[in-house]
Amino acid sequence: MTVRKLGRGVAVVGVGISKFGAFTDKTSRDLFVEAYLELRTTVDKGMEPAAIEALYLGNFSSDLFEGQGHTAPIMADAVGLPQIPAMRVEDACASGGIALRQGVMAVASGMHDVVLVGGVERMTRLPTAQVTDTLGAAADVLYEIPAGFTFPGLYAAIATAYMHKYGMAPEHLMNVALKNHENGALNPKAQFGVTIPDWMQGRITAAQRKGKPVPTWADPMEFLHDDAANPMVAWPLRLFDCSPVTDGAACLLLVDAERAHEYTDNPVYIIGSGHASDAPLHGRADMTTLGAARSAAAAAYAQSGVSAADIRMAEVHDCFTIAEVIATEDLGFFAPGTGFKAAEDGVTARDGARPINTSGGLKAKGHPVGASGVAQVVEVFKQMRREAGPRQLQGDVPLAVTHNVGATGSTCVVHVYERRD
Amino acid sequence: MTVRKLGRGVAVVGVGISKFGAFTDKTSRDLFVEAYLELRTTVDKGMEPAAIEALYLGNFSSDLFEGQGHTAPIMADAVGLPQIPAMRVEDACASGGIALRQGVMAVASGMHDVVLVGGVERMTRLPTAQVTDTLGAAADVLYEIPAGFTFPGLYAAIATAYMHKYGMAPEHLMNVALKNHENGALNPKAQFGVTIPDWMQGRITAAQRKGKPVPTWADPMEFLHDDAANPMVAWPLRLFDCSPVTDGAACLLLVDAERAHEYTDNPVYIIGSGHASDAPLHGRADMTTLGAARSAAAAAYAQSGVSAADIRMAEVHDCFTIAEVIATEDLGFFAPGTGFKAAEDGVTARDGARPINTSGGLKAKGHPVGASGVAQVVEVFKQMRREAGPRQLQGDVPLAVTHNVGATGSTCVVHVYERRD
Repeated sequence: MTVRKLGRGVAVVGVGISKFGAFTDKTSRDLFVEAYLELRTTVDKGMEPAAIEALYLGNFSSDLFEGQGHTAPIMADAVGLPQIPAMRVEDACASGGIALRQGVMAVASGMHDVVLVGGVERMTRLPTAQVTDTLGAAADVLYEIPAGFTFPGLYAAIATAYMHKYGMAPEHLMNVALKNHENGALNPKAQFGVTIPDWMQGRITAAQRKGKPVPTWADPMEFLHDDAANPMVAWPLRLFDCSPVTDGAACLLLVDAERAHEYTDNPVYIIGSGHASDAPLHGRADMTTLGAARSAAAAAYAQSGVSAADIRMAEVHDCFTIAEVIATEDLGFFAPGTGFKAAEDGVTARDGARPINTSGGLKAKGHPVGASGVAQVVEVFKQMRREAGPRQLQGDVPLAVTHNVGATGSTCVVHVYERRD
Repeated sequence: MTVRKLGRGVAVVGVGISKFGAFTDKTSRDLFVEAYLELRTTVDKGMEPAAIEALYLGNFSSDLFEGQGHTAPIMADAVGLPQIPAMRVEDACASGGIALRQGVMAVASGMHDVVLVGGVERMTRLPTAQVTDTLGAAADVLYEIPAGFTFPGLYAAIATAYMHKYGMAPEHLMNVALKNHENGALNPKAQFGVTIPDWMQGRITAAQRKGKPVPTWADPMEFLHDDAANPMVAWPLRLFDCSPVTDGAACLLLVDAERAHEYTDNPVYIIGSGHASDAPLHGRADMTTLGAARSAAAAAYAQSGVSAADIRMAEVHDCFTIAEVIATEDLGFFAPGTGFKAAEDGVTARDGARPINTSGGLKAKGHPVGASGVAQVVEVFKQMRREAGPRQLQGDVPLAVTHNVGATGSTCVVHVYERRD
């Protein structure tokens, strides 16, 4: 692995995120404009749109989701910047994180001083079964999809391998879902801004209203083990192990660190970027860790000169609960085979030693696939600047990480953030 | 326009290109591997695959063409480099040129020393009518496609506007097709390696074999004006005004210029890169020039410190004959409204003052959309190194340009190349 220092420092000085959810009346353009307009309000000292020199846009497949390719110049035009160089980056569900990396490279190289990094995906226009097929295009369509796999199936295979190797039970995964919904309930942009107990309550009330028998679950875990309340999707993964189908967009304003003071006195610096690939899942020796995540994390830590132990919080790619468990191990927070215990012990909760996915994660906040890697940075920015409202972490957040995965880990991208006082 | 110098020099030290054509038995992987294997033979002093640090892949829509997203790590895996950072870039038919720009940025920034830039598209798997619809995704699907436009229609509108403004006749465009087929006939990788007179001869012979009346066209122009031989596609554009539907791939090895001597004594340097966007066609004031091409060219010339007059040859984006005419004006070779006369006068022929598309161009070589921007560099590399065989230009080629367009000019990217002796 060759790791080189970034040529110039890079700072995030503004962020924007649309409401995440299922919207019948919003195209990708609407979602992206919504995120961009919010971004403009978050730049403390204001910004001139004319200062933006380029757009790096993460998008998995507007081609398949809404029949629109060539999305980048269309988004640039939609926000009133039709002439800036605009490019779309695609690496499946890591598209947003890879777009961020391109933006970092553009600034670090001196090619641009001020760039807009965005991510967008409009998914709910298609029926859910077709969304599943569309997402399948991120796997290997010659060897994995014809074998009958969908993404829940691929991650179920990963979960099964992990359970076999480390003795985890399916029930352990529910701790991840419970925590992420607790966090998401405090995030006004989340698709599912509700805790699982509150969700249960809603189900009971709905059942009562229809005059049906009222289930009596003693605690959330009992609810989560109930085949009717939380149906099996692909053993051992149930409905609440899976992130939802989401429409949403997010964007960031990146600038040359030396010019950050023109925009804010409170910037967040990006000090490390790592990106690695891997063969499709069927071609790997070990399914219980993502080699590309380990390589990307090692590169990002080396570039930034920090280690996993220094990191206060992380937004990780919890497309499925098992993915979060493995992510926390691949990032070096917990030893292999112990991530699920850390979740069970509350280490990854907001008041734990290593909070993970304070935004609610993909699980509760939602997963508009091309936007997720960018939305992760929005949360880091807010937590580092103490603007996360009711979900704000206690104490300072001097260092944080984002971890974004494409498919089952054929792409992984990790960034390290620093807040200086 | 902000133009900054490239941080480090960038050199092309190897190129590869698959046979272009319609192949029922080749997937994108097969095409890309074919191009990569050829690349390996063109690096004069040899190369270790392990030296390659990253892949930047141009691809318009493997999603729609073969149901495969997340194409970059799959291609990296296919050529035996599963772990390198691999990203797909999409800007419609400029995807290849934009991937090149990302590769240039990666080397110029110091992020990587040795990168693979690739482009691939497999188009003929779909029926032609569906290919037309798929390509339509590169236009504005909210405002242009519902109005009844396809790409031949959009470029027909451009041609009509140009004819109205500058007094060009539809027949003038045929000079571009005649020239590009003459060049393509000398390119063994071209999809249509045949001159138009030879093509005519083939049609006559085929008609004779079927016992049908033999047409008697006096010259190629007569053939090209014949509604049966060269049917109207979208007035004023006929079949021979349109580039074909093509399967193909191409790739380049880019290295830090200071390390170029490790690979060859005969490198080609990339000294300027320009990229700009524009609103979709329906949102522009003038359809007879591509503003983004003019901006991209200005940026590339400024970065490289050369002017249009210094350029010996260019590979330009002739998706339709009218596009080549306008490209030669946008690049500053000919004044607005005179490009079609330059083609008529033979200025753009191989033995003319400013040869254009010596490879055969998109028109005769073929247009696998995501690969075209990369394939253009293959021709520049060969011409500059005097390896273009029977289509080799007379004299030195010290400076050259590539010009790659997405859709009707919502994306344009221009690169400048230098050969030093």
